[in-house]
Amino acid sequence: MTVRVAVDALGGDLGPEEIVAGAAAASASDIEPILFGPRGLGALGLRHVETFESIEMDEPAVESVRAKPDSSLVRAVRAVADGDADVVVSAGNTGAMLAASLLHIRRLSGVHRPGIAAVIPTRRGPSVLIDAGANADARPEHLLQFGHMGAVFSEEILGIAEPEVRLLSIGEEAEKGSQLTIEAHELLLASSLRFAGNTEGRVILEGAADVVVADGFSGNVALKTIEGTVRSLLGSLRGELDSSLRGKLGGLLIRPAARRLRSHLDPDTYGGGYLLGLRGLVVIAHGSSSRVAIANAIRLAAIGVEHGVVEHLQQQLGAQIGQRQEPAQG
Amino acid sequence: MTVRVAVDALGGDLGPEEIVAGAAAASASDIEPILFGPRGLGALGLRHVETFESIEMDEPAVESVRAKPDSSLVRAVRAVADGDADVVVSAGNTGAMLAASLLHIRRLSGVHRPGIAAVIPTRRGPSVLIDAGANADARPEHLLQFGHMGAVFSEEILGIAEPEVRLLSIGEEAEKGSQLTIEAHELLLASSLRFAGNTEGRVILEGAADVVVADGFSGNVALKTIEGTVRSLLGSLRGELDSSLRGKLGGLLIRPAARRLRSHLDPDTYGGGYLLGLRGLVVIAHGSSSRVAIANAIRLAAIGVEHGVVEHLQQQLGAQIGQRQEPAQG
Repeated sequence: MTVRVAVDALGGDLGPEEIVAGAAAASASDIEPILFGPRGLGALGLRHVETFESIEMDEPAVESVRAKPDSSLVRAVRAVADGDADVVVSAGNTGAMLAASLLHIRRLSGVHRPGIAAVIPTRRGPSVLIDAGANADARPEHLLQFGHMGAVFSEEILGIAEPEVRLLSIGEEAEKGSQLTIEAHELLLASSLRFAGNTEGRVILEGAADVVVADGFSGNVALKTIEGTVRSLLGSLRGELDSSLRGKLGGLLIRPAARRLRSHLDPDTYGGGYLLGLRGLVVIAHGSSSRVAIANAIRLAAIGVEHGVVEHLQQQLGAQIGQRQEPAQG
Repeated sequence: MTVRVAVDALGGDLGPEEIVAGAAAASASDIEPILFGPRGLGALGLRHVETFESIEMDEPAVESVRAKPDSSLVRAVRAVADGDADVVVSAGNTGAMLAASLLHIRRLSGVHRPGIAAVIPTRRGPSVLIDAGANADARPEHLLQFGHMGAVFSEEILGIAEPEVRLLSIGEEAEKGSQLTIEAHELLLASSLRFAGNTEGRVILEGAADVVVADGFSGNVALKTIEGTVRSLLGSLRGELDSSLRGKLGGLLIRPAARRLRSHLDPDTYGGGYLLGLRGLVVIAHGSSSRVAIANAIRLAAIGVEHGVVEHLQQQLGAQIGQRQEPAQG
């Protein structure tokens, strides 16, 4: 089976050449990237659907999606909705991707809010952080659903049986946290999930849990803080080492180890996160994605299709959430 | 002048010996630690006020403070309220410290909520993060006040003229963020502060701004995520280096540089954060504080008294906030 991956060629900070190069690199016998973008893209022999508008990174999400139905972003999303592609990848405006996906692909039955599931490479193996930034404001029942979606992701994509779920908060005790996390804690505890309580930012990278549930605001803060701290720390270490001959020699010797570590922790390794809770599969890549990151995001997208993530979510959410929650609202 | 520092000898995860040792280390001609704790503390010649109860880390804040007026924590806080000490330091239950401070020391006129100001050692010098965890739930006007309090702290303690203030959010654009940050952004923009817009977790450690304003939940998540990421990353690097002879030799050579870096980024360096917005000075140290951290927290406390942080806050907040905000509520 060949997975058809709609790729928004205009998303991303590094320009369309980088996206096209990434798509070309990911193209394989079982992966067919389809580029959505303007004429003259230099599509390197890949399938190309011409589009006529562009949504910028700082445009308001809902308005831009409504105003620009012929943008590369909206057309790529619609390709999944219309059955012309199996999954869509964009490194563009996250809010616009969410809005376009809600409008055209629509939510799975019973789902309140889609959430972004991002894979974090921890010392104990990969963890799923959900929501990594789709919804800046959330209610407790959204966090419960993120727990269910994260668990399905962990089982299906990462192959973890009965994943342990924890809630990101500011203290391990059940009563520590915001009104939101205190209420979400109770819902998670009463659920069928293997919920092990709260966790804190200080242990995320140690491998706090298989699934870390957060509202999209603090989840996004945690994710970006991890990335920034890794980058700053390695930069500072380089600076310290360059300040002495001994350090320079040491730096030369540790280079392979430092490189392994950096590639292990590099967000580009996973390329992006899934936007889960929709009737079709959507992968959101970092705005700053390199061609390597784009290629990995496209491969991640294909894996999701092969593993039937959407179908599994539909079954699991239908069984576990459907009957207990009020119907989703538009 | 000798600064009298009330020290809660029972606060902290490492036991009273560690606190007492830290207090003894900080004791100097201009710093007089006063230990609050049970008989038989082994006070190493320091002043000692006997107390008869203890508040544990996981006790509910308000209830424990009301139920245990003779606890080391409450008695140490009351010493400041009663004028028997100039400042209080505790590594104990943060919620209980907040509750005891609100009850006995009380808020400065016009202040809605006290906030924890934590110093983060960035690559461009120290930044103040406020609120680093006093209030899990916040309103936009609280964030505005945190901005003012952080600016006073930055000027008085860190010596930064006209500090630049930014708001922690999940995108740099004004319209990106939660309902809370979007509204707080508007208030900060309209204020007399040198507000430079939103910032993100990925640049905190690079030195995003002199003052980073956050609600206590995401501020605490960011702070703990930085600490945890630094620890995990250095641990992973050590593991990588130990796996080969070349790595081991390199590790030996880079040890001084790595140690400088670790001590620069070590949260123990600052020892704790100020709880600002009260009629007296309160320093909250990490629960896991070592004797070094406790000694540094006591020195930080003394610096705050010498610089008249409370008096400056009162003046500045009176001038900048007092007339514009509704009266504080109990």
